[in-house]
Amino acid sequence: MKEVYVIKIGGNIIDDEEKLSAFLESFAALQTSTALILVHGGGKLATKMAETMGVTQQLVDGRRITDAETLKIVTMVYAGYINKNIVAQLQSNGCNAIGLSGADGNAVLAHKRIVSGNTDYGFAGDVDEVNATLLSALLEQKFAVVLAPITHDKKGQLLNTNADTIAQETARALSAIYDVTLVYSFEKSGVLLNAGDDTTVIASINPSSYQQLKLEQKIFAGMIPKLDNAFAALSSGVKKVVIGKAEALKQLIAGNAGTTIINE
Amino acid sequence: MKEVYVIKIGGNIIDDEEKLSAFLESFAALQTSTALILVHGGGKLATKMAETMGVTQQLVDGRRITDAETLKIVTMVYAGYINKNIVAQLQSNGCNAIGLSGADGNAVLAHKRIVSGNTDYGFAGDVDEVNATLLSALLEQKFAVVLAPITHDKKGQLLNTNADTIAQETARALSAIYDVTLVYSFEKSGVLLNAGDDTTVIASINPSSYQQLKLEQKIFAGMIPKLDNAFAALSSGVKKVVIGKAEALKQLIAGNAGTTIINE
Repeated sequence: MKEVYVIKIGGNIIDDEEKLSAFLESFAALQTSTALILVHGGGKLATKMAETMGVTQQLVDGRRITDAETLKIVTMVYAGYINKNIVAQLQSNGCNAIGLSGADGNAVLAHKRIVSGNTDYGFAGDVDEVNATLLSALLEQKFAVVLAPITHDKKGQLLNTNADTIAQETARALSAIYDVTLVYSFEKSGVLLNAGDDTTVIASINPSSYQQLKLEQKIFAGMIPKLDNAFAALSSGVKKVVIGKAEALKQLIAGNAGTTIINE
Repeated sequence: MKEVYVIKIGGNIIDDEEKLSAFLESFAALQTSTALILVHGGGKLATKMAETMGVTQQLVDGRRITDAETLKIVTMVYAGYINKNIVAQLQSNGCNAIGLSGADGNAVLAHKRIVSGNTDYGFAGDVDEVNATLLSALLEQKFAVVLAPITHDKKGQLLNTNADTIAQETARALSAIYDVTLVYSFEKSGVLLNAGDDTTVIASINPSSYQQLKLEQKIFAGMIPKLDNAFAALSSGVKKVVIGKAEALKQLIAGNAGTTIINE
């Protein structure tokens, strides 16, 4: 089977013009050898925009509530500003990128998150289906696809959706037709034994070592959803998951850096 | 040759939720019979956003100067908010739309407008080339393409670009491979003899009647760039140009409403 890399780029890199630019240069260089999908998060720009516009952001358990005004802001910032600037930069690096929200070509179908208990997350979307037919057609036409974390419900409603989840669901949907490697790239060198020390990267984690690390509370709480996502992706047919530093993308792909998540 | 309709939708319609929704419903209904490209302008939302954000808008001879902050706003509003809401609404009407800026797939290449005299329009783009290969590939795959008036220079710079011009250049580029009809749809019923009276539509204009109407100063000044664009389009191979009311899209297409611009 042909190979595809689904690469998620985290918010802290997006906020840093220099790091983002270096990342996009390495990303563009990969296009000659493999099919590529980039999924980007939002960074702090949406929060800053909300402040400038005087829109108060509600958070519940650290998660943003997407009210109508916030949806407008994230649609503008994620699907507009960030997505188009990434695409323009990739184009300038000779990479023929095409940027999509989940509504474009019905790329990512979702539903408004169901209210559970007292928490209504508003216009937050939970993914129903990633359109593998659309994505593979674009990949076969040699486009690098850049996905913004905005989805739709096919009833005219846009929805704010977690980018890690979009990356995982995209990797899963494509694994029926491609050998898929899912890369979570962010500001750290990988999954660390000591969150403050970038030299303590765990080179590889499998289900039993993961249980052990969790028991010993050696995994930083913020990493747990990412790792759960990674194992879920592997269980659903994704070939490999790598977590590591965005600037080291080339080494991550080559298997010389970061943490590799394996299923055995 | 196959037919394509390139339809420009004006700003005043975009600002009116109800009219926009009715227009998109008629647009979606056309997709079963013909290939479609929608080019949208910006409306007043970008100006409102600039006010909310405290960004002062500079105008020279009624044209907005696109400074760096304004470029950020129009990228967010045009390529993000407006484009994605139009696509989501078309999807809800069963029309498989895909929204693009000029950077996506290198759809519309432009250059930063050259400073002439004392006026620097900032990050305003003049179109160099519309990518007919990309657009026809998407049309053949049964997508309706929705173009936002943001282009790029392939050097990483996004540019704010006039939507009428994008529509005209798109129609021109596609006319080598399709029979193209270019439709400028807006809030008026067509080119009017009396700007205040929607019943005074001129059914058809050719180059000699255009000269006569201009001599007699019967053409509203704001229509002149649109008509000049229309004749330029016809001269470069576009089959037909129609100007008329967005809500009457079906009748415009059928030739039962609006003003038809012809070259003889």
